Amino acid sequence: MIQLCLIGIGTGNPDHVTREGERRLNEADLILLPRKGDAKSDLVDLRRTLSDQLLTDDGPARVIEFDLPQRSDSKDYLGAVEDWHDAIAARWGTLIDRHLPQGGRVALMIWGDPSLYDSSLRIADRLERAGRRMELEVVPGITSLQALTAAHRIPLNRLAEPVVITTGRRLRDHGWPEGADTIVVMLDSGGAFEVLNAEHYDIWWGAYLGMPHQHLISGPLNDVSSDILRERARLREQHGWIMDTYLLRWQESD
Amino acid sequence: MIQLCLIGIGTGNPDHVTREGERRLNEADLILLPRKGDAKSDLVDLRRTLSDQLLTDDGPARVIEFDLPQRSDSKDYLGAVEDWHDAIAARWGTLIDRHLPQGGRVALMIWGDPSLYDSSLRIADRLERAGRRMELEVVPGITSLQALTAAHRIPLNRLAEPVVITTGRRLRDHGWPEGADTIVVMLDSGGAFEVLNAEHYDIWWGAYLGMPHQHLISGPLNDVSSDILRERARLREQHGWIMDTYLLRWQESD
Repeated sequence: MIQLCLIGIGTGNPDHVTREGERRLNEADLILLPRKGDAKSDLVDLRRTLSDQLLTDDGPARVIEFDLPQRSDSKDYLGAVEDWHDAIAARWGTLIDRHLPQGGRVALMIWGDPSLYDSSLRIADRLERAGRRMELEVVPGITSLQALTAAHRIPLNRLAEPVVITTGRRLRDHGWPEGADTIVVMLDSGGAFEVLNAEHYDIWWGAYLGMPHQHLISGPLNDVSSDILRERARLREQHGWIMDTYLLRWQESD
Repeated sequence: MIQLCLIGIGTGNPDHVTREGERRLNEADLILLPRKGDAKSDLVDLRRTLSDQLLTDDGPARVIEFDLPQRSDSKDYLGAVEDWHDAIAARWGTLIDRHLPQGGRVALMIWGDPSLYDSSLRIADRLERAGRRMELEVVPGITSLQALTAAHRIPLNRLAEPVVITTGRRLRDHGWPEGADTIVVMLDSGGAFEVLNAEHYDIWWGAYLGMPHQHLISGPLNDVSSDILRERARLREQHGWIMDTYLLRWQESD
């Protein structure tokens, strides 16, 4: 019997990990640490640093790094993602069989929270559907969305108003969501807000949230959009990778 | 100079507090603990229990309980809320002046995360606008939304799809948000989902999330909506108060 625990670890700041997350990491027999290829090697290092800082010496935990399968660049985005998840599930299964043949507790450190634009729950689902006897647990973590609003010290929602969480791809393809007051854009490969009429919105942007090199820009979209695009390109060049997210709010005067 | 720190403490489980939240509580000179009247006395007890569990003996922290002003039942909901926030800001100011005349670090324990349907940022804003020299900090915490998805072990979003976070009041007044795939409903005084055609949706509901008496129901809305209404009424009667939230997803087959 395998206990699989998906642990939300926040955005890179070990202090964003919850007491439960820290305890579960230390109780695990096996921690699987995916490597994503060279471009994001900082991120593997970050997870290594996190596990070094959070793991006590006397726990059972054994950390195993593995190479994440590559996602195909097929034009069928959803199909390519499905295949990729199948391949990752197979990889998890092989590693669990090899390192825990008698069963035990497996932990995965998930950026942010396992519920939000993350695939680990869908991958775990595949293991269960393949007939593996498994108990799944989820430990919530601080999302980049919360790290963003905390860093800017702003509320997510305007008083009693709704919020839409969406992706850069959707914003680009569908524009501002009907009736929305505030939207948070995740997974934007850069500048999806350029499809909007910048005069109507305020933006709060953040990159490397929670990390020492956190970078924030905010203001009327019209005034700061080019700053954001320039800084994003510069930072990406400097670090070799970037993770950023932003909140857009319809200006109250409109 | 006052440092005011709004600390997200999650939904009642001390293990949902982050390492940063725990540290900031222990560094505070003054912790303000609001009392909300008899009905929710469990919640004051819960915060007391949390601070007992999280505070070490050797910190500077002094915990001061205070009665929260009452919100007027005026029909002008937004106006009543504005007046209420003014009154709370005045109360915070008085307590800070009395207990920290030389300045220092003030902490408030905020249910969930200070960014999400919480007023403490707007109240802190009033203190700053009134000319108080103040440094504001926000420590993110686990929201009931994350506690909900973790307890049900489900993703918040469907693959690459958006999510709308909204209130019971809005769902009741405006129905299903245009184009939404998944919505999370907060602050529902009960059964706002009854405005929907139950045949099209699945629901994941949770009450007292993260607490020992956590209660979960999920399934097609058509099958479980009456169970939820009945259980909600029973639990509210039993505990004297209830906090619940739910996620609704458009059924994929539609």
